[in-house]
Amino acid sequence: MIVKPIGVISSPFKNRGTAPIQPFQSKAIGKVTVHKKYQKGLTDIDGFSHIILLYQFHKSKGYDLLVRPYLDDKLKGLFATRAPRRPNQIGMSVVELIGRKDNVLTVKGIDALDKSPLLDIKPFVPHFSARKKVKIGWLKGKLPNK
Amino acid sequence: MIVKPIGVISSPFKNRGTAPIQPFQSKAIGKVTVHKKYQKGLTDIDGFSHIILLYQFHKSKGYDLLVRPYLDDKLKGLFATRAPRRPNQIGMSVVELIGRKDNVLTVKGIDALDKSPLLDIKPFVPHFSARKKVKIGWLKGKLPNK
Repeated sequence: MIVKPIGVISSPFKNRGTAPIQPFQSKAIGKVTVHKKYQKGLTDIDGFSHIILLYQFHKSKGYDLLVRPYLDDKLKGLFATRAPRRPNQIGMSVVELIGRKDNVLTVKGIDALDKSPLLDIKPFVPHFSARKKVKIGWLKGKLPNK
Repeated sequence: MIVKPIGVISSPFKNRGTAPIQPFQSKAIGKVTVHKKYQKGLTDIDGFSHIILLYQFHKSKGYDLLVRPYLDDKLKGLFATRAPRRPNQIGMSVVELIGRKDNVLTVKGIDALDKSPLLDIKPFVPHFSARKKVKIGWLKGKLPNK
């Protein structure tokens, strides 16, 4: 399957060393520029406070099936982590949509690297994408209270 | 960017007509078979009650930038909907993980079509992927209480 960027993400983070590990730590502002040819597809997006960005981890190369995540010192299975080095380098972030001008969205809570190729935008709707009463495996006790 | 399946999803839904529109309506059981070569990456996944599946909408062709979603009779911008016909045909579902045997996960609440190529698995962690107090645009008032 060939995937082509529909736009590009601008963020303050030029490389992995400066990027927050996950957007819940980030209040960073970013821009999502959708190619003009897709602009009409942004109709009605303004009504949503949060959107899901799918993008390419464009700086990642290769992967390991066991990785040492930043929140633990033991190796974990790759698919039990959000490590950017994956067989398919697709990232997913939920961000707050704080503005739009034509084909450019302003978002808050971005963690993607600058110039990440944008692959898709979906509305964030808790009915579809959130679940309560969940178990979070090895991350239990490692995350701050929200 | 070339994306290669890391496995395949089995579900009761052979085509769009029989599939639930979104997994919150679905209690359907499915199987996620990860290719053997990636099995080690599933280590530690069992601790998570919910996982995010990224997969290809393999039956979808082309797209329109304005679509008439099932919950409304007016045209909406494509990126304000979850329509499967998109510039990049990538689907995302949060499902309950109810079992694993080696490289095969049993999941509940699947809405993907049978034989959907699996692209990635990420753990569902509310800190990263869920937000409270959200506005859901044109979907307001159209979804059942949870």
